[in-house]
Amino acid sequence: MKRVRMGMVGGGEGAFIGDIHRAAARLDGEVQLVCGAFSSNPEVTRRTGRRVGLPPERVYPSWQDMLSGESRLPAQLRAEFIAIVTPNDLHCPVAERALDSGFHVLSEKPATRTLAEARTIAAAVARSKRCYALTHTYLGYPLVTEARLRVLSGDVGKVHRVQVDYPQGWLTTAQETSGNRQAEWRTDPQRAGVAGCVGDIGVHAFNLAEYITGLHVTKVCADLSFTVPHRRLDDQASALLRFEGEAVGVLTASQVSAGEENDLSIRVYGEAGGIVWSHRDPNSLKLLSLSGSQRTLRAGNNVAELHAFTRAQCRTPAGHPEGYIEAFANIYRLFAADVRNFTTSGTTTLSSPAPLESALRGMAFIEAMVASSTAGQQWTELS
Amino acid sequence: MKRVRMGMVGGGEGAFIGDIHRAAARLDGEVQLVCGAFSSNPEVTRRTGRRVGLPPERVYPSWQDMLSGESRLPAQLRAEFIAIVTPNDLHCPVAERALDSGFHVLSEKPATRTLAEARTIAAAVARSKRCYALTHTYLGYPLVTEARLRVLSGDVGKVHRVQVDYPQGWLTTAQETSGNRQAEWRTDPQRAGVAGCVGDIGVHAFNLAEYITGLHVTKVCADLSFTVPHRRLDDQASALLRFEGEAVGVLTASQVSAGEENDLSIRVYGEAGGIVWSHRDPNSLKLLSLSGSQRTLRAGNNVAELHAFTRAQCRTPAGHPEGYIEAFANIYRLFAADVRNFTTSGTTTLSSPAPLESALRGMAFIEAMVASSTAGQQWTELS
Amino acid sequence: MKRVRMGMVGGGEGAFIGDIHRAAARLDGEVQLVCGAFSSNPEVTRRTGRRVGLPPERVYPSWQDMLSGESRLPAQLRAEFIAIVTPNDLHCPVAERALDSGFHVLSEKPATRTLAEARTIAAAVARSKRCYALTHTYLGYPLVTEARLRVLSGDVGKVHRVQVDYPQGWLTTAQETSGNRQAEWRTDPQRAGVAGCVGDIGVHAFNLAEYITGLHVTKVCADLSFTVPHRRLDDQASALLRFEGEAVGVLTASQVSAGEENDLSIRVYGEAGGIVWSHRDPNSLKLLSLSGSQRTLRAGNNVAELHAFTRAQCRTPAGHPEGYIEAFANIYRLFAADVRNFTTSGTTTLSSPAPLESALRGMAFIEAMVASSTAGQQWTELS
Amino acid sequence: MKRVRMGMVGGGEGAFIGDIHRAAARLDGEVQLVCGAFSSNPEVTRRTGRRVGLPPERVYPSWQDMLSGESRLPAQLRAEFIAIVTPNDLHCPVAERALDSGFHVLSEKPATRTLAEARTIAAAVARSKRCYALTHTYLGYPLVTEARLRVLSGDVGKVHRVQVDYPQGWLTTAQETSGNRQAEWRTDPQRAGVAGCVGDIGVHAFNLAEYITGLHVTKVCADLSFTVPHRRLDDQASALLRFEGEAVGVLTASQVSAGEENDLSIRVYGEAGGIVWSHRDPNSLKLLSLSGSQRTLRAGNNVAELHAFTRAQCRTPAGHPEGYIEAFANIYRLFAADVRNFTTSGTTTLSSPAPLESALRGMAFIEAMVASSTAGQQWTELS
Repeated sequence: MKRVRMGMVGGGEGAFIGDIHRAAARLDGEVQLVCGAFSSNPEVTRRTGRRVGLPPERVYPSWQDMLSGESRLPAQLRAEFIAIVTPNDLHCPVAERALDSGFHVLSEKPATRTLAEARTIAAAVARSKRCYALTHTYLGYPLVTEARLRVLSGDVGKVHRVQVDYPQGWLTTAQETSGNRQAEWRTDPQRAGVAGCVGDIGVHAFNLAEYITGLHVTKVCADLSFTVPHRRLDDQASALLRFEGEAVGVLTASQVSAGEENDLSIRVYGEAGGIVWSHRDPNSLKLLSLSGSQRTLRAGNNVAELHAFTRAQCRTPAGHPEGYIEAFANIYRLFAADVRNFTTSGTTTLSSPAPLESALRGMAFIEAMVASSTAGQQWTELS
Repeated sequence: MKRVRMGMVGGGEGAFIGDIHRAAARLDGEVQLVCGAFSSNPEVTRRTGRRVGLPPERVYPSWQDMLSGESRLPAQLRAEFIAIVTPNDLHCPVAERALDSGFHVLSEKPATRTLAEARTIAAAVARSKRCYALTHTYLGYPLVTEARLRVLSGDVGKVHRVQVDYPQGWLTTAQETSGNRQAEWRTDPQRAGVAGCVGDIGVHAFNLAEYITGLHVTKVCADLSFTVPHRRLDDQASALLRFEGEAVGVLTASQVSAGEENDLSIRVYGEAGGIVWSHRDPNSLKLLSLSGSQRTLRAGNNVAELHAFTRAQCRTPAGHPEGYIEAFANIYRLFAADVRNFTTSGTTTLSSPAPLESALRGMAFIEAMVASSTAGQQWTELS
Repeated sequence: MKRVRMGMVGGGEGAFIGDIHRAAARLDGEVQLVCGAFSSNPEVTRRTGRRVGLPPERVYPSWQDMLSGESRLPAQLRAEFIAIVTPNDLHCPVAERALDSGFHVLSEKPATRTLAEARTIAAAVARSKRCYALTHTYLGYPLVTEARLRVLSGDVGKVHRVQVDYPQGWLTTAQETSGNRQAEWRTDPQRAGVAGCVGDIGVHAFNLAEYITGLHVTKVCADLSFTVPHRRLDDQASALLRFEGEAVGVLTASQVSAGEENDLSIRVYGEAGGIVWSHRDPNSLKLLSLSGSQRTLRAGNNVAELHAFTRAQCRTPAGHPEGYIEAFANIYRLFAADVRNFTTSGTTTLSSPAPLESALRGMAFIEAMVASSTAGQQWTELS
Repeated sequence: MKRVRMGMVGGGEGAFIGDIHRAAARLDGEVQLVCGAFSSNPEVTRRTGRRVGLPPERVYPSWQDMLSGESRLPAQLRAEFIAIVTPNDLHCPVAERALDSGFHVLSEKPATRTLAEARTIAAAVARSKRCYALTHTYLGYPLVTEARLRVLSGDVGKVHRVQVDYPQGWLTTAQETSGNRQAEWRTDPQRAGVAGCVGDIGVHAFNLAEYITGLHVTKVCADLSFTVPHRRLDDQASALLRFEGEAVGVLTASQVSAGEENDLSIRVYGEAGGIVWSHRDPNSLKLLSLSGSQRTLRAGNNVAELHAFTRAQCRTPAGHPEGYIEAFANIYRLFAADVRNFTTSGTTTLSSPAPLESALRGMAFIEAMVASSTAGQQWTELS
């Protein structure tokens, strides 16, 4: 299988997520990093380029240089898609220019800083006809896929209740003034966008809820808080949700839940049963039934009870845990398939679980959350 | 230690909670059931009386008969307190008359059907100067007490976030039309009061949150749903909460979370750490810290790390699980101590964890939830 | 239902297990404590008698006095059965004399100090034709019963492997020289018998394995250790097991597993599946299948999937945890039924899960364990 | 960082573990697969070579061809080490010839089929002065390393008890006659060696116990069973263990524990505490203390409480689970460091957690287990 060539913007040394993206891209041997503009600091870029083994001529001082430099290369050499791993403020300009330059784009979430920016990207996707998707990592977990397939095929009946929860504790103190670079940009409206916690993790929770249920959230009644003194963006949020049909829900996301790590979880209940997934034990999926019996499905490429597509997302048999990087790698693998498919067929029928629509919906969600909370918890529809 | 004499109203055969109350009362040998009016059906009352070993003359055809009959007995024989275990509609009339007849009252929750009724009871308490408390069972779990003591002594720092969740699934289908008596009265506004799920279990969640944090909820923004067709009272509810000080929170309660049993849980986060308790594993209490280390405290009368009061609520050493009946028995034991203390000192300084104030606050909560939801999720203050 | 009258030997103040027995006997209201000889110290006996509300004339200075005193009372007043809650050295003499005096006997485990003593009791049972059973507490857990019923009905197929494990940590240090009375007698061969850890908890593990599988252990290859300096009895033990048929197994028991509480667990595997129960979460039973699907059965009197007999051992619906005292109470309730049945029918067809045969097998196990280990881990058959 | 060049023997399509090795080697970008002889079937080899993107000239029809072919290449091109991923029968011949040809060797476990073969390898290591290590995967889990560092630094005091358990269920039925290739060679003495379950997974358990405790097992008293009819090698095993010093232990391994996946676990107890790790939740490490408090350490490169070396084995912060492939990748990364170190310094001071000594000890263990069981559970010393 031919490896798909990737360029990366962002992800210089010290940026946690850059190494994760690169490991995920490498894991299955289907993607090859061929160029990068890893940092606004050229020295960091050079060092990162050396460390990841790129030839110096493919390590660019700026993302603009990279896009133009790669464009000048022969088609069989140049990057086919651009992974955007920067703080949020660069997502839109890089994505737009990359698309317009003929590159496919795989971008970190949230898609942009504002819904307007997301629409700018949508326009670029429309005119470029290139593939665009987000790395909503959690959709890469095989049992998240299984949960979706089971809900969509009616295993829990008509859904009437969704609870999704995403607690973290790392921003309980003012990390942004203690030299933590991750905290700095995430709490800076200029770089992060209109929301803090909601944009950083709330959007994952939202995205997970829509993905698994196959239902759109129609409106939110949200309560965002700014807990740590002097923080400029929300660090905790709760919201009442209404879905298409008659389902209701609750979404909670917090970065000041002291001592919590990263335990995104979701519970979906319908007329006939429930389904529970938690990132704390991502290789188990609990199926609840009206009879009271609880079944636990386990991830594994040998588990006959899983849907075939789910099994295909597993690299190991049950009992050999896969984790965060493998989930990320699934996102990369599916996007690589999209790119190969485009190359072959010229079409952009995506298999990526978080395509452009996720970008638009995610940003609509973020803006609705902020608007609802600002208005004193008024129901606010998603644009 | 002299056993305290109890009369019981409600709890006839077939009423789940009657047997639990009687077992809890028996467990520690500090309470003696001396009389009962167990049902509106005199035959059920008689049968129940025989089964629990009461002499026929102390088994009364009606609660009114019981109160007057017992009043005529010599002081050293007659019931000292009345346990009210009926559907909600009788809580107020029985409690008021019992108090006015000189009996102490230990009542099932919710206190009444409306806040007005709770105030009627409050007036009776004031004029009778008798002990009154609710059986908010979960406050009887030793580690719930420990959680409270730790939060109040500052172990998690200033609280800024509370999440309390109470899922059940037994009302996912229309049990109330299938001959389930528990479901029938709980979904009948006349007997249950202004709320269904909120009154039945939401009030437990609310009570737990206030108990552990020591903070009052000031207002709610609530979303109640009537999921099952033709159901007349809410069967699921979610609410944004504001507490005294600056803490925010979320409360969820549902009886249509298909497949869930009874997994009340609470998470409290402050500046310095977090604390997590779940009824699914009630003998463990998780202490979260900013450093990431997680400690698990375990219940046990031999666990030196617990507060002395907590240890005193345990009957067994760590590793010998206590459960629901023991929690209930702690409520009885503490109320029995209140009654003995009254007998000795004439005062009503209660050690019960859910005294009259809990009744008033609980009903204020229930009414605020209903009002907020009816008004389309408007913030509503607790009276 | 008429309450069965019980006398108690042992269980004076400060003896952990005495209070547990009394609470268990009280819980269901089917047993009434009518007399006691709680301690060799008459003052402790008197104080305990007062505390549990016995009339002074039924509180006896010695167990001999109690047996003769009760024998002189009219049949409708005197104790019907004697609960023996003493250190092991008194089990045999008290049981023998009680049986010969016409009382039924419910005894703590291990049955005696030696197999010879157990045979003495067996002879007394044979000539007295009274009921005799042991309080093997763990057999009182509803899901232990369920595990047995499922294995016996073939749910896991022919059993080929059993692992049973019982770790405690409380004797990791020399508690017996620090004033811990529980530790003192348990490490004293005169009072405890030929074994320490094996007799105190190993026999529980053995008993559980035979109960659930319905198979006899035929021989053991055992390794007993005396870990703490100067300790005179084993404090940890491991053994290879052979069962009737072709099943093999491993039994481990330790009181020096530092930090462990009391986590007895068992796993039974057969041709068609496995079954796992752990005291750490006693209200769950895991059913493993060849397909990889894992089901969790939950205890509860409303759980249709449980055998009817199992449901009858539950007092609460699923999600309302029962624990150690309830398990103990089930042992009492079943023995009370045996006693009532004897009174009615004159027969001793026992429903108790640990009848005389358990006493003989348990002591045969203990002696075989000691003999095997003393001989340098030679296979030793159970007599 | 320069990538280390690897050749692979075995791991053709359909061999589960080949893909895992390749993914693990790729994950960190420090190892490059440059050649392979993936199967005895040249067509499978060719197909696998294409799939993993090797140039045809580096895909060899046999491992002998590969070793000679690579030897003829310029030093800066040829493979630096050979990963052996074949069934056990080829481990010795391939390793010996590779070492003698100047290649380093990273081999699957068990090292060989017999201890004699392992000594053949040892001789080759001695004369070639090349690096040799085993892929004992579980030693690659960060918290296994942490457990070792904590035990070695005295956190649990002097160790007196070890329990290690490895249940699987996949061989409960006669997979070896149903076309399962993994099962075929593992149950074939010619290809697997003297042991089945003991060699396949028992040796992992043994290795883990010695690694974490830093203590040698001195002798075993083992019970191996051949459960499934016609199976020629053991499929379940239990053993009493004696360690250097006075520690005792129990080791269990089974491939007929129906329904179990792959839940290797270990518990180590000493005078001052205990430590528990389980593959079911590999990112948690339980620390037990005499006081009863239980702490849970969590894996993460941001967890200050971990030893620095442990943190360096983590790629993600706490709450972002790593799994089996990452553990494998740590083994590869450490071996790659060994190879680079050799290239730089000419020395073979290994950082690999399972060096040659593990091979010798593992095979001594396997042979002692078989010998002890064959002799009817006689204590048998490890050579």
